Formats: sequence, C-alpha cells, structure tokens
Amino acid sequence: MPAIPVEAFYLTPGASGSLQQQIRTMVTQGILSGRFRPGSRMPSSRGLAEHLGVSRITVTLAYADLVSSDYLTSAGRSGYFVSDTAPLAPEFPEGPPRAEAIDFKALTGGRFTRTPRVERPEDWDRYPFPFIYGQADPTLFDHQNWRQCALRALGKRDFAALTTDYYDRDDPLLIQELLRTILPRRGIAAREDEVLLTLGAQNALWIAATTLLGPGRRAVVENPGYPAWRAIVAATGATAIPVDVDAQGLPVQTIDADVIFTTPSHQCPTNATMPVDRRVALLGAAEAQGAILIEDDYEFEMSFLKPVAPALKSLDRNGRVIYAGSFSKSVFPGLRLGYLVGPPGLIAEARALRGLMLKHPPGHIQRTVAYFLGLGHYDALVNRMKNAYRRRRQMMSEAIAAEGLTVAGQGGFGGSSFWMRAPEGLDTEQLALALRGEGVLIEPGRAFFAGDGPRNFFRLAYSSIAPQRIPEGIARIARAVARR
Amino acid sequence: MPAIPVEAFYLTPGASGSLQQQIRTMVTQGILSGRFRPGSRMPSSRGLAEHLGVSRITVTLAYADLVSSDYLTSAGRSGYFVSDTAPLAPEFPEGPPRAEAIDFKALTGGRFTRTPRVERPEDWDRYPFPFIYGQADPTLFDHQNWRQCALRALGKRDFAALTTDYYDRDDPLLIQELLRTILPRRGIAAREDEVLLTLGAQNALWIAATTLLGPGRRAVVENPGYPAWRAIVAATGATAIPVDVDAQGLPVQTIDADVIFTTPSHQCPTNATMPVDRRVALLGAAEAQGAILIEDDYEFEMSFLKPVAPALKSLDRNGRVIYAGSFSKSVFPGLRLGYLVGPPGLIAEARALRGLMLKHPPGHIQRTVAYFLGLGHYDALVNRMKNAYRRRRQMMSEAIAAEGLTVAGQGGFGGSSFWMRAPEGLDTEQLALALRGEGVLIEPGRAFFAGDGPRNFFRLAYSSIAPQRIPEGIARIARAVARR
Repeated sequence: MPAIPVEAFYLTPGASGSLQQQIRTMVTQGILSGRFRPGSRMPSSRGLAEHLGVSRITVTLAYADLVSSDYLTSAGRSGYFVSDTAPLAPEFPEGPPRAEAIDFKALTGGRFTRTPRVERPEDWDRYPFPFIYGQADPTLFDHQNWRQCALRALGKRDFAALTTDYYDRDDPLLIQELLRTILPRRGIAAREDEVLLTLGAQNALWIAATTLLGPGRRAVVENPGYPAWRAIVAATGATAIPVDVDAQGLPVQTIDADVIFTTPSHQCPTNATMPVDRRVALLGAAEAQGAILIEDDYEFEMSFLKPVAPALKSLDRNGRVIYAGSFSKSVFPGLRLGYLVGPPGLIAEARALRGLMLKHPPGHIQRTVAYFLGLGHYDALVNRMKNAYRRRRQMMSEAIAAEGLTVAGQGGFGGSSFWMRAPEGLDTEQLALALRGEGVLIEPGRAFFAGDGPRNFFRLAYSSIAPQRIPEGIARIARAVARR
Repeated sequence: MPAIPVEAFYLTPGASGSLQQQIRTMVTQGILSGRFRPGSRMPSSRGLAEHLGVSRITVTLAYADLVSSDYLTSAGRSGYFVSDTAPLAPEFPEGPPRAEAIDFKALTGGRFTRTPRVERPEDWDRYPFPFIYGQADPTLFDHQNWRQCALRALGKRDFAALTTDYYDRDDPLLIQELLRTILPRRGIAAREDEVLLTLGAQNALWIAATTLLGPGRRAVVENPGYPAWRAIVAATGATAIPVDVDAQGLPVQTIDADVIFTTPSHQCPTNATMPVDRRVALLGAAEAQGAILIEDDYEFEMSFLKPVAPALKSLDRNGRVIYAGSFSKSVFPGLRLGYLVGPPGLIAEARALRGLMLKHPPGHIQRTVAYFLGLGHYDALVNRMKNAYRRRRQMMSEAIAAEGLTVAGQGGFGGSSFWMRAPEGLDTEQLALALRGEGVLIEPGRAFFAGDGPRNFFRLAYSSIAPQRIPEGIARIARAVARR
C-alpha cells in the first residue's frame, strides 16, 4: 500500500472548528470518499505538522482520536495506517440526468405554496433597520445559561432517557414546570393529561385545527388576523369565516361556526386587548352555539406596561377553550417548542395526531427548557427582555409621534410591535419594497387581511432592532411615506 | 422587610444538579412563588452553608450567579437581598373546577386515537428481553462525540445563526453533508432544491402524503406493511389499496393508484429485498399508470451481510420517486431528524406545508448532526452498530434454529429484526401478553396487516437487547409457543 503524501492535506482559511477537528475531518473524508485506502500509511505526525504549520501534538491528538473510532490503526514506531475495518462509503455511479417530467404543481394543486405570507428577506439581520416581527435579539439572550442547561441535559444520566423513542409521551420534567410555574401565571390550573408539547405554537394550532376541522366545518378567523391560522384552516378543507375586529379585539357575534380562533391577550396584528366582560360574553356565545374556542396566547410574557389579564382559558368551566402557548417567542424562535392545553379527550386525539405526523419534539430540547425554567433563567431572561422592550417601545412612541406617523393599534400592556396606518391609497407592499433599498424592513399589512383587504396598513416590530437605530429608521419610513 | 430564615432551605436527597444549582433553584422558586418578597434579606452565605452542610464558596457562587440575573442584589457587607426588580410570577386564583362537558371523541371523530399501533410498553427498557424494534442501545452510542458536536453547535458563532426563525430554510451545512456524503451512497445525486429536512422519516412520509393525497385519491400500501403509512393515508382521506408482498417485496401489478408506497431496501416487516429487475419493472408500471412512488429507505445503513443495493430513487429518470430517509435509526430515535428527496416542484410544496405545520426542525439539532457527519463520527457509529448487529444476528439465527422457531423473513443484507411465523391458530397478541409476564417483549404482527390479517406472525428485533440475553430470550419464546 502506498503512503499517503502530506500534500493530500491542506487547511482551508476560515474553516470552522479547531485545527484538530479540521485534521480529523480531512482524514475521515479521505477515507470515506475512498481516496485513502485501508492499509495505507498516514504521513508521520511530525511531517504533517510541519506541512500544515501546526504543532505536532495537534496532529498526534487527532490521530489518537481517529484510532479510537477505528479510522486509523497505530503500529507503534512504524506510524499510523488506515484501518482495515475503517468505515466504508459505498459509492454508486451517479444517477441518470434528471428531467422534471411530472407537473407537481398540478398534481398537488399547489395549495401550500399558494399560502399568502408576510414577505421577509432571509437575510433580514443584514439590514440596519429591521422592524420585523418574531426574530430574536441575540444581545438579549442568556447564551451562557442556556448552554449550561443544554450541557446538563447532555449529561450521561439524562442522555439515556432522552435518546429513546418517546412514543407519544413528553418529558415529565418539562410538563411539571409547565403545570407548576407557567400555566398558573395565566390563571390556568391544568393536569398532565390536559397538556401536549408541540413544535412551537404554530404546530399547536395546526394540531388543534386538524383534529377539529375538515371539509364542511366552519372556523371564525379574526380580520385582520394571524395569516398562518387562515392558511391552516384552508389546509384542513374547512371554510374560514372572517370577522372584523375592533379596538377590543374579536367582537361577539352569533355566527354558525364549529371553531372560533382568537388572540385575546393582544390581538394579532392590532395588539388590542379583549376586556374581561367581552371574554365572558364570547365564552357564553360559543357555549350557546356549540363552538370550540382556540386561544392563541402569544407574547403574554411581554407585558411591561401593566399586568397581563388572565387567559380566556382561565374562565373556561366546560373545557370549551383550547389554549396554545409557546417558548419560541420568549426563549428564541429557532427553539420550536410550544404547547397545547385542553380537555383530556381533545388532548388524547391531538397526541395521537402528533404521534402520526412527527412522533414527538426532540427529547434534548424538552429537557434543556425544563432546566432553563427550573433554574429561574427563563424568568430572568423574560425580565431582561421586558426591560429592553419597554425602552425600545418608548423610543418608538417618541419617534413615531415626532415623525407624524399614525398608530392604528399598539396594545395596552406591552408586546413587541405597533400596527400602523399609512395614508389612504398608499400600497404598503410597494412602500416596503422601496424602504428595503434604504436598509429598512417593515411588514406590509396585506397578508393579515382575508380576501382583498385594505393595503395601507403595516406592522413595525421592535424586538430585533437596536434601540439607537430606532429614530433614524422611523425617520426614513416617514420620509418614504411622504414621498409617495 | 423580614430576613428569610435558613429553615426555608433544605436539600432534597437525590435531587439532580450540582449543589450550587440546587441552591439557585430554591432561591428562584421562592422568589417566583412570592414566598421571598423583594427587599427581604437572604441568609448569610456562612449561615446557609452551615445549615445545608455545604461549603461556603458553593453558597457564595450561587448568590453571585443570582445577582447577575437580577434575582438578588448585593449590599456589600450588609449581605444579599431579594432584588426589587426580581422576576415576578403573576399569580391568579385557581380556575374554576373543570367539567368535561364536551364529547371531543364525537366532535373529532376520534380518527387519530383509533389508529392501530404496535403495542409496546413505555418502560420497555426495564424488561430483560426486549425484542422490540426501533429503540437504541445506549451502550453502542457515541455519547462523548455527540456531546462534543452539540457543544460546538452551542458555541457563540453558531448560536446566533441557529436561534433565529429559519422561516422555511434548512441548515446549509447539514444539507451539504446530505448531498455530498449520505445520498451519494444510495446512488442519489441531488441538488439543494431537491431536499427537505423533516422531523424524522415518519414526518417525511406525512408531508409527502399530505401534499399528494386527499379524498378521492388512491394509495397502494404494502401488506403486511408499515402501520404508520396506512394510518397516514387514512388521515389524508385517501383510499388505501393493500397489495400482498412476496419474498421479493411489493409485486408489480397494474393498479389504478395515485401513489405507490414501498420499502424496497428491506420490506417492512418481512425484510425482503426487492431485486433490481423488479425495481425497474415497478418504475415502468408507475410510469405507465401515472403514479408517484414513495420509497421509504429505512435502515439502509445496517447492511452488514452484503452491500446494500442502490436506492430505487437512483434509477429514477423522471422525478417520479420521492425518497424518505432518517438519521433517527442510525444516530438515536429521540433525535427526530429525517429528510425527503424529490423533484423541486414537489419539494417546494412540501416545504410550504412544513412551514405551515411546524416551521422547521430545531436549528441546534440540524447543526449538531452536520458536525457529527462532517467529523466522521456518524460513519464510525454506524460501523460499530453494524459489527454489534452482525454478532447479535448470528446469535439470533442460532438460537432460533436451536429452538425450532420459524423465520418468515430475515433480509439478505442485514437489518435489525426477524419476521417470524408462529403455528397456525396461535394469536401472537396473546402470546406477547403472556411473554411480558416472563420479562420478554415481542411485537405481534397484527398491526402490520390491513383489515383482518393473519394473527400468527410476530417481529423479533435485536437492536436493543443485550447479546448475552438472546439465547434465554428465544428459549422463553419457544417454550411459550409450545405451551399454547
């Protein structure tokens, strides 16, 4: 077998990982790709170290690591060799050239790609003035303690428990934290069989809708309202019935519907908070017409102006309200962990559906969040976010007033956004496009409306914009509005 | 404000976490529950250390940590106090007593809870002879390197990227690993827009089915076959058409169907491998009738008897095959990460559906798997599993032969299970129940059959049973079969 020359190795500038990891990767890729054959002699650690310009101990450690995972064998003073039992990558000749002969758009009906969505560039964080909703500000996040909790959940003791197929269970530790600390703050006393963990709040809504809706059923959607909920209703085949919201959120009407969706804590996108008497009336109306209420209690933690009211669910005596909550807003959006609270009969059905569509949220994430809650880091983080949002909101208010823009809804207790109205006749989709060129991102309001709604609304969020950028950002928006 | 007495603190024997973490938890829970009020003086670190019987530095470090997250303030020599701006837990009076007044079983139709499933006890790992499928053996797992990769993905640089809402993208690093190292081993050359990450293979199948099926459509299901696929077809409202498999897997028939589901690498549950000529014929038949093929290529890595054949997808010239794969089988089941490969038109639709139902798999898990692959740990792990499974399979074969049990299907290249036939008239659900009492878990075959199938089949897996337990486990099964 020939010796592998040192020239087979080179360090890529800017590559990620330690030098030792980079060496390891070069060796494993060489072996797996078949370039380094079993029995071949590796360069000496001294020779490779000189060639790469790294210390010899780095190479030695990488080699030792590769021996322990059977990529290499050590022959004492004779050096290192590619192991005869090293992992092999079976390679097949590349497949035939592809033709896209089938019209999948026609075959699937394209019903999911047709979903209208709030247009946001993927590289939003490269814009200096990102007034977009639902992204995190990494400067607020408690990275160190999150890492500690994740590490603890990666420990041997937890790990064995978390790597199994959970079937349809949830992490009991996280469920306890939810039942004992999170839900009581919303006035909700729930038992274990009334809670299901989900891949975020949107997944909770999807699961609730899929169990309760279908062709022939009818669901109330707030107008304007959460676009994903409208799309989810459409996906089930049910009929969406838009109901215009007012300054107190969803009005109480006698509508023949199977499901009523509402965001009482602060309405999406207007931020209106539903007063308690309307909540009671809404519950009564749902009762009278036999409808189920789905409450999306997003962002309830971000109440820094006055205490948040208890959830609609807390008034529910008959198991008529299904409640969706999320950790993604308050921890970080990429987390993808939320929950559904409802009567045991509904939760059992939702659990079976979750089992069928994705089994369960990854165990390690469930346990990490359980620790993050249990050690009080979650509350500390929410506290820090509230303080930051309070300051930013103050700056937003002042800048908006100074520039003469019109607030259409701002929420009484906090939140992370303003609902704005531009002058009649101004199309905010074009406004948003023009502002992109100036480094400003805003969210046009059109996607929030059912059918052909007004085009002069937009949303301004302050959860991921640096506070010192707010005045200039608002000024640019005002100038763009004035120009049109 | 009163001082908080040391008696408010006690260590629970066997509690998890370091002493410092336990102290932290006691303090944060006291504050969040309202028992420790803002301004109250904490016990001195010396006093609390003596009371708990821990070193003073442990208490001091816990206090310092609590100061940094604003639960406590330090007043120099005067000691520590509960911070005036400490996180508050708004508490509401407990909700009204619940009545389950609504019959959710009737309302939802109970269609998901009615799904037949392979009966497996949740505490399967407490049985000495668990011949059950799809669970990991923690003794084979590379815990240390997984932890290293997870840690690296938790580093500052990655973290900012991974905590954002990905919208509908995937981790580009993991996609590159898939395209460059995993798919080529199955003979599949795919581009970025032909791949979608999912919450495991089952989620991939759910997504494929939901885009392609619905009321009025028809889907072929293998019989016996993967029970979750049958349930998924039912959930879409499509009609399932069971086709009996033979010793070479799914036979080629002219059936009017929109979708044909198949497991050619080794059929679930019989382990039959479909020969290449039948694959070509199946592709031709699908082409002729305009059907889409969905290939579930589960466990292809576990080919230790002979090299695995290229995937059916590798023969596909027209984008007619949609391919589902998983990391959950080969890394660990609780991971929940899989992928779907198909033509860009289908993947775009699948991506929009995934965005609607769960947004995306958690970023940290995507990046951890990318590192685990990139550093070669994945291949080393698969190699180790193959060696272990080869030994176990050998022991299974010998024990099954020695005890005179009948193998109905075992797979030519490896896998992790045997498909077994008990004598005619023996109900394996009752057999399984009786064996539980003797510490033995087997999987009755009934759930794999459409409608009223035979009841004398069962599956014996060897992925999570300790090898030295195999002979005694098989002997117990043989005795139980003989007794009935």
